[in-house]
Amino acid sequence: MTTPWTPEDPDFAARVAASFARQGAMAHLGARLIEVEPGACAVALPFRPELAQQDGFFHAGVVTTIADSACGYAAFSLMPAGARVLTVELKINLMSPAVGSLAVARGVVLRAGRTLTVARADVHVEGGREEAPVATMLATLMCLRPRA
Amino acid sequence: MTTPWTPEDPDFAARVAASFARQGAMAHLGARLIEVEPGACAVALPFRPELAQQDGFFHAGVVTTIADSACGYAAFSLMPAGARVLTVELKINLMSPAVGSLAVARGVVLRAGRTLTVARADVHVEGGREEAPVATMLATLMCLRPRA
Amino acid sequence: MTTPWTPEDPDFAARVAASFARQGAMAHLGARLIEVEPGACAVALPFRPELAQQDGFFHAGVVTTIADSACGYAAFSLMPAGARVLTVELKINLMSPAVGSLAVARGVVLRAGRTLTVARADVHVEGGREEAPVATMLATLMCLRPRA
Amino acid sequence: MTTPWTPEDPDFAARVAASFARQGAMAHLGARLIEVEPGACAVALPFRPELAQQDGFFHAGVVTTIADSACGYAAFSLMPAGARVLTVELKINLMSPAVGSLAVARGVVLRAGRTLTVARADVHVEGGREEAPVATMLATLMCLRPRA
Repeated sequence: MTTPWTPEDPDFAARVAASFARQGAMAHLGARLIEVEPGACAVALPFRPELAQQDGFFHAGVVTTIADSACGYAAFSLMPAGARVLTVELKINLMSPAVGSLAVARGVVLRAGRTLTVARADVHVEGGREEAPVATMLATLMCLRPRA
Repeated sequence: MTTPWTPEDPDFAARVAASFARQGAMAHLGARLIEVEPGACAVALPFRPELAQQDGFFHAGVVTTIADSACGYAAFSLMPAGARVLTVELKINLMSPAVGSLAVARGVVLRAGRTLTVARADVHVEGGREEAPVATMLATLMCLRPRA
Repeated sequence: MTTPWTPEDPDFAARVAASFARQGAMAHLGARLIEVEPGACAVALPFRPELAQQDGFFHAGVVTTIADSACGYAAFSLMPAGARVLTVELKINLMSPAVGSLAVARGVVLRAGRTLTVARADVHVEGGREEAPVATMLATLMCLRPRA
Repeated sequence: MTTPWTPEDPDFAARVAASFARQGAMAHLGARLIEVEPGACAVALPFRPELAQQDGFFHAGVVTTIADSACGYAAFSLMPAGARVLTVELKINLMSPAVGSLAVARGVVLRAGRTLTVARADVHVEGGREEAPVATMLATLMCLRPRA
């Protein structure tokens, strides 16, 4: 994945990986960070019954959670060292049932501002019925900069 | 909680509880269904580190997951026996850091149609800094009716 | 309408009215500011064919426009003198066809931060088929503060 | 613009143009349909002061209105003859001030179902400061089929 962004922090990949590793929720779901580029990030999640909704698909909330992480870390990769990232809001269309053995959320930054970043994520399910994304998200992220 | 809705299925509460119990994701998070009324539903989730984002708050995805369940089961309570509910899309504003010992999502139906239902959920955190909701969601749910 | 907010600028109502009057788009639609309180605002719009979609209802974009203004000015009422307001993002569920002689959007602030404000608006149509709101919006607004 | 979709109605382009022409709101804004392909649509809107917000940019509601039309007609192009299209919900991120002489919204269908269609639109402003889109929308559209 090549991206149009130049990161402010050359150590962005290590910084993203360290933050991801601190997210108890990602470990609890079993999600892994599989790709980090400037302004882009991919998160993978193997299916297991603990992630299902009542009909045995990935739960909408779980799909949303990995898409949120993909957007958040895509944004975080462009933020300066010492900054924190918060999700201000997100919206997601769950276009098809998320049936399959592995869900992958890929987030990309659409607009990086000093305070606010807008990112999009698509979620694909491997081992499922179709190649099209099962969900698409738009999210607004906020950069909390370190005190000068 | 009294609501303006009359359920089509008098056994709605048992039907909601049975469906909730089948959601692997709710058990895995530790979420409990604490209230079901016609067109309304509350889901509670005690904090633990497995639910945190990188700064130790409830993860945005986790907050979104219980709000989605609260909206989904508020909608499902008004659907006929044998129907299934799917989240079509959702959007959430995460207004304050979700810091506290217990998160409670309360969902209510705003509009119940034959095919589409619109619901809202507010999420409060107990033991936290403020009484205002930390997040508010709007969601669109779809009713998949049993074949006649 | 009583609200829980204390405005930073005691002249908020005049400031909101002056800004609304500068919006060419509001005049072009025929929208009027009918109420301003701290953290709340109502905008009314009489129906005319120039505001319709292809089936003769209020166009979804027109409904969204007055809801956006109601959210924006609810937020702006709490901002300091000299500040500007921008809509960062919005989402709206159009729950019923907006059929009627007058649409009224009422916006209220849910969370007022130094930089970001979250507001909700409901849109009712008078002279229509039902009393329930035809649409509900969540919006995120940004405060651009005057340079010190 | 080539698209992956095969229209059910070979006369889709004429059907879209006729519906667009019936939208009083599009004429009132001065918007023109400039492109229709299967599952895709572009709407252009020249700037004039009647479309402005208080600082002289395109009003967020106006940007949203043309993006909604672009999504709606992208969806409508794939619907059968005799069907009607309704916007169920939409969400938009307004990423930069919409400053320029012409706004163009391009909508594409992401998922076309029997009842629900999901579309995305990007809005660019020509004669403005930047080439990146100023806004991006996700929308859910509903197909009301003719009675058999």
